[in-house]
Amino acid sequence: MNYTKKLMIFLNVTLLVTAMQFSGFVQAEEKKPYVPKKMDIYEGFPDWYNSVFKDNVGLKEGAGLFKDYYKPLKMQMYFSPLRHYEPPTVMDHTLFIEKERRDLCIRCHEGINTGAVEDWRRSAHFNPRKSGIIARKTKIIEGAIGKEIVSVDCFDCHVDTEKKQIRLPSAEECSECHERQVREFNSEKDHGRPNHIQAWEANVLVPWYPEAYRRGWLAGNGGCDMCHGISDKCDPCHTRHTFSAAEARRPQACMSCHMGPDHPDAESYGESKHGVIYEMEEERYNFDKPLAHVLVGEEYRTPTCQFCHMYQGGGRFTHNFVSKGIWRMGTVPPSNIEYKSSLKDYPYGINIIAPKIDIHSEENLDKRDKWIELCSNCHSPRFADTYLEQLDDFMFQAFGLTDDAQKIIDDLIADDILYPSSQNRDIYPLGDKLAELLPASLIGDGVWNAFKKTGGKVPVIGPILGVYALFYQGENNPTHIETSYAKMWFWYKLQGYKGFAHAQQDIMWWWGQSPMLQELGNIQSEAMRMRREAAIEQALGSKVSHRQGGGSESHQPLTKKVGEFLQFFSVNE
Amino acid sequence: MNYTKKLMIFLNVTLLVTAMQFSGFVQAEEKKPYVPKKMDIYEGFPDWYNSVFKDNVGLKEGAGLFKDYYKPLKMQMYFSPLRHYEPPTVMDHTLFIEKERRDLCIRCHEGINTGAVEDWRRSAHFNPRKSGIIARKTKIIEGAIGKEIVSVDCFDCHVDTEKKQIRLPSAEECSECHERQVREFNSEKDHGRPNHIQAWEANVLVPWYPEAYRRGWLAGNGGCDMCHGISDKCDPCHTRHTFSAAEARRPQACMSCHMGPDHPDAESYGESKHGVIYEMEEERYNFDKPLAHVLVGEEYRTPTCQFCHMYQGGGRFTHNFVSKGIWRMGTVPPSNIEYKSSLKDYPYGINIIAPKIDIHSEENLDKRDKWIELCSNCHSPRFADTYLEQLDDFMFQAFGLTDDAQKIIDDLIADDILYPSSQNRDIYPLGDKLAELLPASLIGDGVWNAFKKTGGKVPVIGPILGVYALFYQGENNPTHIETSYAKMWFWYKLQGYKGFAHAQQDIMWWWGQSPMLQELGNIQSEAMRMRREAAIEQALGSKVSHRQGGGSESHQPLTKKVGEFLQFFSVNE
Amino acid sequence: MNYTKKLMIFLNVTLLVTAMQFSGFVQAEEKKPYVPKKMDIYEGFPDWYNSVFKDNVGLKEGAGLFKDYYKPLKMQMYFSPLRHYEPPTVMDHTLFIEKERRDLCIRCHEGINTGAVEDWRRSAHFNPRKSGIIARKTKIIEGAIGKEIVSVDCFDCHVDTEKKQIRLPSAEECSECHERQVREFNSEKDHGRPNHIQAWEANVLVPWYPEAYRRGWLAGNGGCDMCHGISDKCDPCHTRHTFSAAEARRPQACMSCHMGPDHPDAESYGESKHGVIYEMEEERYNFDKPLAHVLVGEEYRTPTCQFCHMYQGGGRFTHNFVSKGIWRMGTVPPSNIEYKSSLKDYPYGINIIAPKIDIHSEENLDKRDKWIELCSNCHSPRFADTYLEQLDDFMFQAFGLTDDAQKIIDDLIADDILYPSSQNRDIYPLGDKLAELLPASLIGDGVWNAFKKTGGKVPVIGPILGVYALFYQGENNPTHIETSYAKMWFWYKLQGYKGFAHAQQDIMWWWGQSPMLQELGNIQSEAMRMRREAAIEQALGSKVSHRQGGGSESHQPLTKKVGEFLQFFSVNE
Repeated sequence: MNYTKKLMIFLNVTLLVTAMQFSGFVQAEEKKPYVPKKMDIYEGFPDWYNSVFKDNVGLKEGAGLFKDYYKPLKMQMYFSPLRHYEPPTVMDHTLFIEKERRDLCIRCHEGINTGAVEDWRRSAHFNPRKSGIIARKTKIIEGAIGKEIVSVDCFDCHVDTEKKQIRLPSAEECSECHERQVREFNSEKDHGRPNHIQAWEANVLVPWYPEAYRRGWLAGNGGCDMCHGISDKCDPCHTRHTFSAAEARRPQACMSCHMGPDHPDAESYGESKHGVIYEMEEERYNFDKPLAHVLVGEEYRTPTCQFCHMYQGGGRFTHNFVSKGIWRMGTVPPSNIEYKSSLKDYPYGINIIAPKIDIHSEENLDKRDKWIELCSNCHSPRFADTYLEQLDDFMFQAFGLTDDAQKIIDDLIADDILYPSSQNRDIYPLGDKLAELLPASLIGDGVWNAFKKTGGKVPVIGPILGVYALFYQGENNPTHIETSYAKMWFWYKLQGYKGFAHAQQDIMWWWGQSPMLQELGNIQSEAMRMRREAAIEQALGSKVSHRQGGGSESHQPLTKKVGEFLQFFSVNE
Repeated sequence: MNYTKKLMIFLNVTLLVTAMQFSGFVQAEEKKPYVPKKMDIYEGFPDWYNSVFKDNVGLKEGAGLFKDYYKPLKMQMYFSPLRHYEPPTVMDHTLFIEKERRDLCIRCHEGINTGAVEDWRRSAHFNPRKSGIIARKTKIIEGAIGKEIVSVDCFDCHVDTEKKQIRLPSAEECSECHERQVREFNSEKDHGRPNHIQAWEANVLVPWYPEAYRRGWLAGNGGCDMCHGISDKCDPCHTRHTFSAAEARRPQACMSCHMGPDHPDAESYGESKHGVIYEMEEERYNFDKPLAHVLVGEEYRTPTCQFCHMYQGGGRFTHNFVSKGIWRMGTVPPSNIEYKSSLKDYPYGINIIAPKIDIHSEENLDKRDKWIELCSNCHSPRFADTYLEQLDDFMFQAFGLTDDAQKIIDDLIADDILYPSSQNRDIYPLGDKLAELLPASLIGDGVWNAFKKTGGKVPVIGPILGVYALFYQGENNPTHIETSYAKMWFWYKLQGYKGFAHAQQDIMWWWGQSPMLQELGNIQSEAMRMRREAAIEQALGSKVSHRQGGGSESHQPLTKKVGEFLQFFSVNE
Repeated sequence: MNYTKKLMIFLNVTLLVTAMQFSGFVQAEEKKPYVPKKMDIYEGFPDWYNSVFKDNVGLKEGAGLFKDYYKPLKMQMYFSPLRHYEPPTVMDHTLFIEKERRDLCIRCHEGINTGAVEDWRRSAHFNPRKSGIIARKTKIIEGAIGKEIVSVDCFDCHVDTEKKQIRLPSAEECSECHERQVREFNSEKDHGRPNHIQAWEANVLVPWYPEAYRRGWLAGNGGCDMCHGISDKCDPCHTRHTFSAAEARRPQACMSCHMGPDHPDAESYGESKHGVIYEMEEERYNFDKPLAHVLVGEEYRTPTCQFCHMYQGGGRFTHNFVSKGIWRMGTVPPSNIEYKSSLKDYPYGINIIAPKIDIHSEENLDKRDKWIELCSNCHSPRFADTYLEQLDDFMFQAFGLTDDAQKIIDDLIADDILYPSSQNRDIYPLGDKLAELLPASLIGDGVWNAFKKTGGKVPVIGPILGVYALFYQGENNPTHIETSYAKMWFWYKLQGYKGFAHAQQDIMWWWGQSPMLQELGNIQSEAMRMRREAAIEQALGSKVSHRQGGGSESHQPLTKKVGEFLQFFSVNE
């Protein structure tokens, strides 16, 4: 018999009996219940947001606009509890909840989940006066919620007293005491994506997610869920059950998510001089202090992730990590350079993705000033300003190379050389459903019509829609040249970007600029070969059986098609 | 003149003289010699094992079934001392050994190998009562071996008193005092490969090893030797000359071997939340304590490699790391999914490699229960169970993608499109000798016949035999499409596997699932191009000089051929 | 208004007023000025060196032989201050300089660059007697420069009292007190490149650097500048403003530069047993002690980067890291093996790059003895000797594989199969200018003539000139096969080399030998496809439009061409 089942039956019996024995005492201790107030984590979001992202549906349906097109992986009840948690069924905790038997949680779980309980015992939740600074914070919280806090125990977070059931706490439960932090976190939405509060969108709102489900690959996407669940959880940074602010102030707190091709932050910071000095002098960094009180130089010799990215200017730090983001994730083309390829028309009338970024907008210049203010803690303002300018130049050049590559593929498609053509390959992920699922107002008339007419058989390349090449593989969609291009603008450009931004020169060059050039060469070679082969087939005429279907409108890249469509209707966004 | 020689001559002279001066005193101290008992490290292995893996042959021949087909690299005397060590010849230590001049070792080597001697001075070997816990362990050992231990010195480990020569100790020498540990280590064999005790097999028993020797590349394989030497040595984990148990309990002890494409354990654990918390709170982990006594939560906030993988259930920990392995290395196809490609027939009647794994066998369900028991130290059993189920789903899907890729190449071979054909390329590594060297009873009649008939010119792809693509490059064998496939199922699948298993989501996705999809796309593109080119040549008829040799039986993939052979003879394994 | 400007104006006003108020006092304190002597950092270099590498030109022109062909990135004023620094213009510091108002620096910068000032306060510059060892060092310096040192402040390093302007100190300024160290650093030149003192050469003296400028990509090369600036700066290791010797003795001090494809030192050391033990026992390493006084074993259980690479033999350590380098960076072919490809003729008469290395030369055998002496601190001399021999064998084999790959491409070029031909693709970087810019005496008559005649349209592959494939992408130059080859001999060979040298077996194999074999396979497949396609075109005759231009002399690889040229003229180098 399975261990879990055995354990559970044992517990059921033992504990229910125990509970009954003690219930006499408990009933005498009746008191006026404290009713906590909690924040709506999606406060300020559009109306439809709660119904597709928040309202708990357990594991019955998904989240977002494609919620009916995939069933969540079971683990999502832990990664995205607000929407997907289902209370445990192996053991009925109702009686303990009704009697408010706080004492019993520990009694059992101490033996089962010793580590979790020990963590909690080390936490400020167990001892809200464990240090001077924590006592002061507790005092403030007590004032705000109007209640004395002796300790915060299992019951407070894990019990839904209304529904009388076990819950997995989300940021909303945390907001009962830590409202300011959750409100700051919510404020990230005001600065556009990417951000943490909307991270779950980028996970499930992309068509390759439900497509992966349709093809039976969703477990493979489980990796996405683990990070993107940060939308409604606090414990990715303040790990359970210590929930330590000091821990969350350490660079390592960010690193298990912020690594890899799309945001090599751990690597680029960790191996930069900033990171290396942190590693060498770690014990001198005072993580118990709130960031605003840190003595620069004395307590932090170099900045941490948090010190730079939580900084709001004027000496203020909040739980908003994106307010100073200029290039953001590095994937959106800047409006400040000229494009030769169909990148000219980006974002092709699509309203759901951000338009080109004006790096020199007033707003971005203000952000830059805050960066210079920050860097000037140690460096000269001129040094900081020059460095940031060179970072911009790098990014302009990287988008220039991206443009070169996109032009090569644009031309292949326009000349009906890309092999196989969009007609002779698999659809764009969920391409057969997109026009049905997404209103033209969201994805633009041009794109909507293209998908509608072809059932998803449109060639799509480049930022952002073309990133599917790294997340999906249909039959011959994408082909090698498109994957190579996707790696160029997404994977390697982002390595170069973060290498530059975090001053890790080797990552900047060797995992960034150099492989971008290598992929460009590969794209050239691949395009040249496709042209050579097409010319051979041309010369052979009808003798070759493997010819493409005849050239047609749908062979034009989505980008070009949309551009023309927009021009035609004089749509101006 | 070479430094080594100069040094040795100096030492020879000085020491021999010194030795003579002291010899008078020593002869007086005669005592009854203590005769240590040591374990046969390959106890319980098949009869032929000792003669090809254990019996010391110095550097004269190799190990395993191909022992006559390669000469070991000189470094193997250190990596695999049991079989390959040769005593030093530059200086004759016989006199010191005969006189049992233990005191003289240090006298010289202290000056030559200061670091080694200092390490020893910090060890429990130098001071077997250096702490309470070590004193207790020493007491137990003394009881077991029937001898008081004042100290364990150079002489005890490095001198073969029978042969009167210097030896490099192997695990067998360690077993004189630490028999339980070596016996536990030996017990890994009972759970199948991969394991530590048979690691040397996976190094030298693969045909690309002697083939590398034949082609003059063996130094390039030197990297393999360094890790795989763990078969008969204890110091890969308990590094010399401190041989510390505390050191071997730290995750870092595993990491210089357990990293890289085939088992990215260091990366995936190190960058997971478990690993990151260990990194941040390292000083709180009490490594002096035996694992069974560790207070979870208090002394280890997160698990270490050792804590999970040495766990045997029921609170017991031993030196057997593989007893809970379900998916093992992640390379053996599961029997739980349907295959479209020739993976259907895996392992093709080969008895030397493991058959498909039934993930849901009773034995594997028992292992799973032990995992759940372990994870429940901190997590809920439901969390653990769900996570492990999702890991299985990931692996099933990954093998599904593997199957898709293998089908593409199977079809290319069956249609005589793979270019060049097996006839027109180099042999499978050592393919010309395999039928001669390995009995049909080991590799199955089908495979044996295929190799026999073609002299090794058979197309081989996929797990496990096809992994040669990452270890060998003959002329056009493998070609790009096969290497791409090998990277897909071996390199990237294993990244995804360990990323998932160790809860490092970025590795799971970005170094696992995503590149698997990318390679699948690459394989599709490459297959498509081969078909296009073949069609062109077909259309051109006899005009093209570079045509393949005519289609023939040997063009069928080994896997298909074997399948048919087995069917034909109704061989059922 | 921009933050920088606002800040500067504020400072200008406030400080100038403050300065005026204090100026009365200061004028009274007049004393005989101390005139520091500093070393010429390029002492012993050829005459032309100073004029192209040292003489300060601000940002007006570049450095080296191509100095007129690129404008430096603005950040180069910080990365290469000796040549490129420009004093700040936003605020006039002249008055403070004239009055020698040392006290005022801190007064302002303490508020602006708190971290920098705090760093300095922790340094030996602030307190030259902060420990016994530092006091003794200070005493020695005082003796040497003939002046008592109370403290070394901003003024001492950052003020050019002659020019009365702010300077960014280079190693020359450091040499005023630390002459021995700078002199040792300078001595690296005596051992050939690569080295630190000439690092800037390898950055800007390669034709792809000015070519990147010409194509508008120079910001992408910014990563190069950050490391290569070490030529004339001490703070890459002794980071500002603590300038700590102890910090520079830690392996991490090297790691932000010494990582990545070309010198994966951080990775290979860090993940070796040496590095892992350092990581585990870091707190036992005594970095306050000069290397020569370190008690091996007791204070360093394993060696650090510095301990091995600064060792000069006989117990002596200096700031020369290259004196024991045998294989150097691993890019120069050894003279000890036979080549089939045009590597036979390496270095093709080029005087600017090093000739083949004789691994067994007297000089290299002496270096080897020093390594053995070093390793014998812990290992037996035989172990060390054997290991080093195996490393050599690995390198010989790696160059053998390189030779195989070069032969394949040599033959493609000779047979006019490489597609497109050199005539039909972009030039070699700066190829149109090279014959004009570099005298034949430097690059050899053969190479010079080839470039002269073709205007840079020569096929160039292999070490060293062919490394451009990783640094530049013109139109179809390089193509995929050449990039693959460049990755093979440069990227992966160097991984294997350092993996071996630093005893990190996984890097040696999985990032070294295995991908080398994979690239060789890829090169074979690509060559085979080019031959197949050429044969098809041949069969089709004039029908195909995409044919190569006719075969001609310039289709021969540069290497072959040069070889013939040299033979013809019986030039023997």
